[in-house]
Amino acid sequence: MTDKNQDKHKARQQKVKEQVDQKVAEANIEQGILQVITGNGKGKSTSGFGTVARCVGHGMNAAVVQFIKGTWECGERNLLENAGVPFAVMKTGFTWETQDRESDTQAAQATWQHAKAWLQDENIDLVLLDELTYMVSYDYLDLDEVIEALNNRPKMQSVIITGRGAHRRLTELADTVSEVRNVKHAFEAGIQAQKGFDY
Amino acid sequence: MTDKNQDKHKARQQKVKEQVDQKVAEANIEQGILQVITGNGKGKSTSGFGTVARCVGHGMNAAVVQFIKGTWECGERNLLENAGVPFAVMKTGFTWETQDRESDTQAAQATWQHAKAWLQDENIDLVLLDELTYMVSYDYLDLDEVIEALNNRPKMQSVIITGRGAHRRLTELADTVSEVRNVKHAFEAGIQAQKGFDY
Repeated sequence: MTDKNQDKHKARQQKVKEQVDQKVAEANIEQGILQVITGNGKGKSTSGFGTVARCVGHGMNAAVVQFIKGTWECGERNLLENAGVPFAVMKTGFTWETQDRESDTQAAQATWQHAKAWLQDENIDLVLLDELTYMVSYDYLDLDEVIEALNNRPKMQSVIITGRGAHRRLTELADTVSEVRNVKHAFEAGIQAQKGFDY
Repeated sequence: MTDKNQDKHKARQQKVKEQVDQKVAEANIEQGILQVITGNGKGKSTSGFGTVARCVGHGMNAAVVQFIKGTWECGERNLLENAGVPFAVMKTGFTWETQDRESDTQAAQATWQHAKAWLQDENIDLVLLDELTYMVSYDYLDLDEVIEALNNRPKMQSVIITGRGAHRRLTELADTVSEVRNVKHAFEAGIQAQKGFDY
């Protein structure tokens, strides 16, 4: 690279750095973050579990509530439970495998009690409410009650909500919202779900 | 809920289940998956690290290559290194903090050697190439060489590539592509990055 190009590159990178530094300096509110990860793409729950791993890696406390439990064994759960993360998992497995609205509602309500307790616990730094969005869409949980619990949680506690079709009131309440869009999926090309990757 | 509504709900859920079951039955190719997680939203690397946690939780082997290392301590790394995951981390820190194209290129090339070795290792089930996209965009790495290494990897090995602006040749090669779109970010509302959540 010529000296001139090197100088241009340096100037451009310097500008990026200044913009980032300025944003960091301006962001001075200290509080827990409510993140919603929605959309039809792969990686929403996985992102949530990744943040739980990060939290635990710092020696902080996280708790996980899974509102839809796959029928497969869950690798993350092994690792994170061994690291001391409490899990509350809804008992009925995949919602579309049970097909019973009454029992699904009861199971969702029972699981929500764990979430509610953790959302009041100052010792929990991060609560992952995995696949909660469906419980709201299906009316298994009362949205007002969910929002009240989120609003009344300890000030420094962060919460992650995952799942497709997040209700607008949840995304409005959230500080950070990411939408994971499916561009393409191996499944569509006939590739089987792989242990250690997909489940 | 009336009996009629319960029946309608049951029929709808049964149809969803049948569609999912059929897709699962049709997906019968056994091979490692190449996933690209791109877009401007939060959670790309975190999703990659979540899959690494899943893999390790199953007692399988993963390796992590980080092409951009934040200046913050990394919680995931603590947890995953304790679980036996090898890390190769590019030495120069944030690219826009070093601003030296020659040394960045050398650092990227050195880090890439670790990636190349793991992409030939049948004992590694999953390789995370975190933030690799930037190395390609900045021409720090040769795209042809990256693609050749991906194509020649062990058949059952899965690979995850994260970062904004993934090159079209990478997304075309990938089996699964997710785009994480930023809907809103706490940062923009002045909320500081929180330990255990953002880093």
